[in-house]
Amino acid sequence: MTKREFKEYLEKNILILDGATGTELQKRGMPRGVCPEKWVIDNKEVIIDIQRGYKESGSKAVYACTFGCNSIKLAEFGLEDQLVEMNKELVRISREAVGDDVWVIGDLSPTGAQIYPLSNYHFEDIVNAYKPQVKALVEAGVDLFVIETMMNINEARAALIAVKETCDLPVMVSMTYEKSGYTLNGTDPVTALITLQNLGADAVGCNCSTGPNDMIDIVKAMKPYAKVPLIVKPNAGLPKYENGETVFDMDEDEFSHYGTLLAEAGANIIGGCCGTTKTFISKLKDKVKDIDIRMWTDRQGSILTSERKSVTIGGNNPTIIVGERINPTGKKKLQEHLRNKNMDYVVSLAHEQIEKGARVLDVNVGMNGIDEVDIMKQAIEQLSTFVKVPLCIDSSNIDAIEAGLRIYPGRALVNSISLEQHKIDKLLPIAKKYGAMFILLPLSDKGLPKSIDEKHEIINTVYSHARELGYQKEDIIVDGLVTTIASNSKAAALTLETIEWCSREFGTGTIVGLSNISFGLPERKLINTAFLAMGIGKGLTMAIANPSDELLMNIMRASDVLAMRDKDSLTYIESFSKQEKKTKSKEIAGVDTNEEIDIKQAI
Amino acid sequence: MTKREFKEYLEKNILILDGATGTELQKRGMPRGVCPEKWVIDNKEVIIDIQRGYKESGSKAVYACTFGCNSIKLAEFGLEDQLVEMNKELVRISREAVGDDVWVIGDLSPTGAQIYPLSNYHFEDIVNAYKPQVKALVEAGVDLFVIETMMNINEARAALIAVKETCDLPVMVSMTYEKSGYTLNGTDPVTALITLQNLGADAVGCNCSTGPNDMIDIVKAMKPYAKVPLIVKPNAGLPKYENGETVFDMDEDEFSHYGTLLAEAGANIIGGCCGTTKTFISKLKDKVKDIDIRMWTDRQGSILTSERKSVTIGGNNPTIIVGERINPTGKKKLQEHLRNKNMDYVVSLAHEQIEKGARVLDVNVGMNGIDEVDIMKQAIEQLSTFVKVPLCIDSSNIDAIEAGLRIYPGRALVNSISLEQHKIDKLLPIAKKYGAMFILLPLSDKGLPKSIDEKHEIINTVYSHARELGYQKEDIIVDGLVTTIASNSKAAALTLETIEWCSREFGTGTIVGLSNISFGLPERKLINTAFLAMGIGKGLTMAIANPSDELLMNIMRASDVLAMRDKDSLTYIESFSKQEKKTKSKEIAGVDTNEEIDIKQAI
Ligand SMILES: [Zn+2]
Ligand SMILES: [Zn+2]
Ligand SMILES: [Zn+2]
Repeated sequence: MTKREFKEYLEKNILILDGATGTELQKRGMPRGVCPEKWVIDNKEVIIDIQRGYKESGSKAVYACTFGCNSIKLAEFGLEDQLVEMNKELVRISREAVGDDVWVIGDLSPTGAQIYPLSNYHFEDIVNAYKPQVKALVEAGVDLFVIETMMNINEARAALIAVKETCDLPVMVSMTYEKSGYTLNGTDPVTALITLQNLGADAVGCNCSTGPNDMIDIVKAMKPYAKVPLIVKPNAGLPKYENGETVFDMDEDEFSHYGTLLAEAGANIIGGCCGTTKTFISKLKDKVKDIDIRMWTDRQGSILTSERKSVTIGGNNPTIIVGERINPTGKKKLQEHLRNKNMDYVVSLAHEQIEKGARVLDVNVGMNGIDEVDIMKQAIEQLSTFVKVPLCIDSSNIDAIEAGLRIYPGRALVNSISLEQHKIDKLLPIAKKYGAMFILLPLSDKGLPKSIDEKHEIINTVYSHARELGYQKEDIIVDGLVTTIASNSKAAALTLETIEWCSREFGTGTIVGLSNISFGLPERKLINTAFLAMGIGKGLTMAIANPSDELLMNIMRASDVLAMRDKDSLTYIESFSKQEKKTKSKEIAGVDTNEEIDIKQAI
Repeated sequence: MTKREFKEYLEKNILILDGATGTELQKRGMPRGVCPEKWVIDNKEVIIDIQRGYKESGSKAVYACTFGCNSIKLAEFGLEDQLVEMNKELVRISREAVGDDVWVIGDLSPTGAQIYPLSNYHFEDIVNAYKPQVKALVEAGVDLFVIETMMNINEARAALIAVKETCDLPVMVSMTYEKSGYTLNGTDPVTALITLQNLGADAVGCNCSTGPNDMIDIVKAMKPYAKVPLIVKPNAGLPKYENGETVFDMDEDEFSHYGTLLAEAGANIIGGCCGTTKTFISKLKDKVKDIDIRMWTDRQGSILTSERKSVTIGGNNPTIIVGERINPTGKKKLQEHLRNKNMDYVVSLAHEQIEKGARVLDVNVGMNGIDEVDIMKQAIEQLSTFVKVPLCIDSSNIDAIEAGLRIYPGRALVNSISLEQHKIDKLLPIAKKYGAMFILLPLSDKGLPKSIDEKHEIINTVYSHARELGYQKEDIIVDGLVTTIASNSKAAALTLETIEWCSREFGTGTIVGLSNISFGLPERKLINTAFLAMGIGKGLTMAIANPSDELLMNIMRASDVLAMRDKDSLTYIESFSKQEKKTKSKEIAGVDTNEEIDIKQAI
């Protein structure tokens, strides 16, 4: 099936998946402790019966029983050398069960491994654990893929990259959220959605862990941001331990009732996970058949993510300070630590900046005498694990940017893409491949623009290249190209013009490298601070700056009040009190925004 | 002659005046120490001979010999009871000398008195010293007036008011400048021009004290701002004491050579003062007859004046902080001093604010239990004498504003005129009569505007009323109508919209009462400061604020650098050094502006 066919089906239908496999296998005698996939192959009539039941109940697609057939998981049972065989056989069995009218979905699930620095498996090891499985499944003729029951967003990314680098089949990604609304690793649904849909997932959603009632808030939280269909596969309520066995507390009627609510909330692909059976599916199918399909959106907004946080740029959201301190230019101490590969110091620089109010961190490790690609990878590994805010990957070395983007467990910002040939030809497709937003630097192979018109033209040209790759304006942040006012009295006016033009006409966010403006003048912080306030007045959305500058941060918060970027002046007022800056409820959605896209409040 | 006829003549001709009277009378035997006017009446053949000579040399107008015929001056000779008689006789003699083809000009000159608080003569006493003279001259049939050889701008204003309140004849005002470029009282030519042409002078210029060469710079300095014809009447160079008598060092040829340079620089009315004779006039007339007339301008710019300083608003000029501290609202100490009529405290508040960077001072003395009209008059008397910067006269009491405007020796700013009936009907004509600029407050009898369009409509309506009286947009400063952001999150946006609209579309300067924005929020100075920077980014030209707020002033100066309002960042940089803030050469023109309208540089 092509991605296009998949999408067209979902424009017209709610896709009904199958119900539980694991709990059905256990009911039918699969013992604990065995390799489930091996047992299924050895007892294939069991899975054939289960999947035929789902087909008869109305499932349009079944998950091939390849859940644990990646190389790391199979190695636990000493079966890794049978990986190709097993995957192919499991697809063949499913096909035998459901025939050609029902889609057989290649199922990728957790390897069970953590990723470096939390284990010795590096990101690429995880990609490589999935790649042979993906290849075997493609060769066996699956119609599409699902990456499911994921708790680690970066493992989901690794699996997604493995699929994308192997074939063009549609691929759905389904995370598992606790009652808290977060995955075990601390990722919230909107953050996962933004990360995955930009990385190329054709559907995103959630499965297992909770019942359908708990998933309604998750679907509602994701829907406004979803550029892809949403998938849900809830358990039959919550598990109870009764008379020595695990049972689930929801019956078919209650389950299917919530199924309609899920569809109404925006789910496009629905099935059942643990505890559900073919009667759950048939009742579900019956209930949702008359519900109007809720389409996905064209616009997700300008959103960056880390593993555990989304940050929305623009609109009525607060101005974003991108912490500038992880940059060795002119900093001896940082240079020495980078040379010694001491990432603790880099992480401490990150924490300091976040404490002072940076909401994104620029990461630049470019200096002489180091392997920048390697050091960038190490820095991103450490920062993305131990730091909550999104990162801006900043280098003149395209390989270093790619290395960082590949392993970064969120949606990064690339700094920067200009109208220079190698940036357009090489860096732009890389940024797009990894779903990153990018900073558009308005200069070309000919250098700085000579006029405002040339500047606008460069911006438009870079945008048209980006659009060909599928980028939208909301994915782009235009750099205001700040030069020093000490050598050109029009420097501020030229940048402010660009900010205003992007804000009012062109329709993108903007960023400035703030301190460039004051180079060569005394009391630079005053000039920087005044420039930031003026910029915010013109619609500036981000600034690369040092958040340790208290005056700057105070005036930024005051400017946000004036520019309607701080509802009820809460952030401003709280910055002067000792209260906790964020309320618990605001944290849940993980999205750092004034609009309440909190999954609790979205009900 | 009507003002219109006067203007029409000058659109087609350079008006040639007469030469010296005083030095000619002395040559013909007038002794020292006598009352010259009395001696002339007693020896009328002498003046008839002199003035016939000028007529024959080509003078189109002669000054009646009424120079010292005001009541104060005549009282020095015990002749004040002959004032009417003498003025009428002197006009009659001049008419006998020159006939009807040559204009006889009623000549008003200094009373010799200083004005309160530098003497016991109050401003109104000076007006009353001139009024009987003006009345007698009008009755005697003068064609127009000249107020000449003035060293005190407020005495010139008193004479001008006396003429304007008595008749509609054209009136020229001619100040006397030292070599330094200032009058003895410290007024510069541009400041005098702005003050006098707005108060209703039909021509402005200079006479006596220096030769024509020294007047070229003065004419060049005034010309770009002159909405009226310029008059010059230089001495025959500089006086020398030779063989027991005073002689002048320039001959007819040199004098007439400079005469052509004066005409080329923009003089429209030329004659001679001390030391010149009828041959000077005939050579002058011959030399200037082929010179193209240099017309006056339609636009003087937005300029306020004090006795000794002009402040230009808008363009690339620095943002102007209007010091807000002379306002008793909520200030117990100031209330007590005002109640005790202790103006020293008011003056000290003024000096403090100027030292901190205020470039205009708001003066509001409105409080319970005082005679506001009287206290306003006292405050303006003291402040305008002892303080260098222009004043903004601020009251809800129209009589208090009028009392202040009448005695204020410059061009004040009126705070404020709204679309309320009594403001339009009563206050607007008063402001116009005294040549003041005014703050247009966009509210009406119906209260605050309900929408942006209504706000724009109110502004347009007030402007149309003002235009009927002869006001132009450059004479108006629109108030951004700041409300508190604590009760309306759009408060800043609404004000910034008005600032931008006035700056880009409507074409006036703008002012805000800065601190209103932050009422009810903590750390108000941060909000005020951010708002000022944003406002400057949108084109804000003035803010009423407390200049003791160092952060505010620092960010304002930084914003001025960014907004191209501080050439080469000089003011900014100097604010951090101990250097003198102004260079000597910049001081000469008195106009506080980045454009170099310095009379030395205008050469
Ligand atoms: Zn499950
Ligand atoms: Zn003279
Ligand atoms: Zn409008």
